[in-house]
Amino acid sequence: MLTLKKPYLLYLGDATIPTDAKTACGLRDWCPNDVLGEWSLPAATVSVGLTRIAPAAAAARGAGSFVIGIASVGGKLPDNWLPDIHAAIEAGMDIVSGMHTRLTSFPALVQAAAARGVQLHDVRHTDTRFPAATGRKRMGKRVATVGTDCALGKKYTALALTRALTARGVRATFRATGQTGIMIAGEGIAIDAVVSDFVAGAAETLSPDNAPNHWDVIEGQGSLFHPAYAGVTLGLLHGSQPDAFVLCHDPSRTHIEYFPGFPLPTLDDAIAQYTQAAHITNARAHCVGVSINSSTMSDAAWAAYARDHSRELGLPVCDPLRGGVDAIVDRLIALTPTSV
Amino acid sequence: MLTLKKPYLLYLGDATIPTDAKTACGLRDWCPNDVLGEWSLPAATVSVGLTRIAPAAAAARGAGSFVIGIASVGGKLPDNWLPDIHAAIEAGMDIVSGMHTRLTSFPALVQAAAARGVQLHDVRHTDTRFPAATGRKRMGKRVATVGTDCALGKKYTALALTRALTARGVRATFRATGQTGIMIAGEGIAIDAVVSDFVAGAAETLSPDNAPNHWDVIEGQGSLFHPAYAGVTLGLLHGSQPDAFVLCHDPSRTHIEYFPGFPLPTLDDAIAQYTQAAHITNARAHCVGVSINSSTMSDAAWAAYARDHSRELGLPVCDPLRGGVDAIVDRLIALTPTSV
Repeated sequence: MLTLKKPYLLYLGDATIPTDAKTACGLRDWCPNDVLGEWSLPAATVSVGLTRIAPAAAAARGAGSFVIGIASVGGKLPDNWLPDIHAAIEAGMDIVSGMHTRLTSFPALVQAAAARGVQLHDVRHTDTRFPAATGRKRMGKRVATVGTDCALGKKYTALALTRALTARGVRATFRATGQTGIMIAGEGIAIDAVVSDFVAGAAETLSPDNAPNHWDVIEGQGSLFHPAYAGVTLGLLHGSQPDAFVLCHDPSRTHIEYFPGFPLPTLDDAIAQYTQAAHITNARAHCVGVSINSSTMSDAAWAAYARDHSRELGLPVCDPLRGGVDAIVDRLIALTPTSV
Repeated sequence: MLTLKKPYLLYLGDATIPTDAKTACGLRDWCPNDVLGEWSLPAATVSVGLTRIAPAAAAARGAGSFVIGIASVGGKLPDNWLPDIHAAIEAGMDIVSGMHTRLTSFPALVQAAAARGVQLHDVRHTDTRFPAATGRKRMGKRVATVGTDCALGKKYTALALTRALTARGVRATFRATGQTGIMIAGEGIAIDAVVSDFVAGAAETLSPDNAPNHWDVIEGQGSLFHPAYAGVTLGLLHGSQPDAFVLCHDPSRTHIEYFPGFPLPTLDDAIAQYTQAAHITNARAHCVGVSINSSTMSDAAWAAYARDHSRELGLPVCDPLRGGVDAIVDRLIALTPTSV
């Protein structure tokens, strides 16, 4: 499993589009204690509101990694960012990037990192070899977030569940499966970058045996209903062996994002199909709640939606950003062994 | 997509266990016109019944590839086979291997192949980058073989269907997704070696647009019910967009092979779940028959099994090795557009 050195200095390059700083914002919001400050080129107009610290000064204050906090369309690493990256290497920091372009595709960076004894981490890629899955049941409890589609809150929901469990005194670990999640957690596996034969095995590696009353909260990927990525979703689900899952959904979507001909499932159909799939490796797997991105709804519309769907499904229906996930956490706590 | 140079010289190394020559037997049986002969070390006791031809003589008679016909447990390439492989390279043949050990992990082979201008093909691995799936419906008809488990006749059934369709005057192409299939077809994609995000995209690449009355017969991999490999199965199924599928099953198995805690599904449950999964990318996908490995049954038991299950499922129930797959092909022909 990939492990990153914290704390981080967040790099914003020459960003001028605020939404491009999604990764930096995620880190600022979800691991504020692990973030020392931000740095950028003079041309940048975007800031995430942190103290500006140059690489050398950040390293002197203990920064372990220089993290590219920008996820631009196309994911290319611009050449004019390289001097700052070299400065960070010289200062002794590891470099962490979620860009499509690999840091290791720049021979000068590879050479500089080797000379200074620091690591280049391309968290979107993985060259790690994982074993094939064994199906062996592991100790500890597991909850997975799954979705009707991609990019509708599976990471956010998993983080919110982890935070809420911890706040209630339950031991819980967020298990990251995507690039931003890995940066937040400081470790994880970019599951969609794993060779397909070993996806379930990688998922088994990600959430090893743990204490019987400990929860691993596993960040889902893709969707069983997605024409391109359902295989990733299924392999991750099987290797995770979840006892419980939370279905994530955005009611404003009418079809799979970017795939107009592919309708979204209904909530009860999605729950039924995820339950059926999860039963392959854990016969007790069941849905413990629905996490909704309600950002397009008025307060009244959301209240009615949550009430109606909760009644219909017999499950808590929450929005992590609007009321939190405590009703779902109640169900997880009810499943937690009390004497261990 | 990987493409291999035919005809082949089959290499048996120093094999002494007949079942290790599975790959060579498959090639001898399924593409006899593409096989010039066999070659082996003096210590070998195994033969697949072909004419012995040394590499230089085979090359002089037009052999395009020297194919490792042995799939030993562990999949390691023994050092004492290297002189014969070097001789084949010197003779100007490509080398084709389905071993776990990559040919390209031997610097001397890489150097020799480069000097002689021939290719080293590790068909179990792939370094090709595939696009993500688009879900776009492609022209032509497609039938996929799927299974209740791994290794129970999906490749064999796909080859038998292709042969039977062709014999009936229907244009059909076997689309290989595993190492032996790729060697037989001379092309294909080792789908379980593809990075998981791109499995469905690779499957789309494997069976491109074709004539409306042409059938692609797609070799299935793994099983939706397998705790380690279901993700591969699902991605391949989605990218294949099959109009029809054939369920393969071995009634002598009581659980997933090598996974004692994991029961096999019933035939009707398997058909229902494959239909549901296939509908994500093709709403017309349906089961057209069941292919059984009946080798453990007496003639009377097989006749009763086929009759009872055919009646119960409303589908042809065939064994490609015992009566053939014509009843399934009848259903495919009924689905073939007649005027194009």
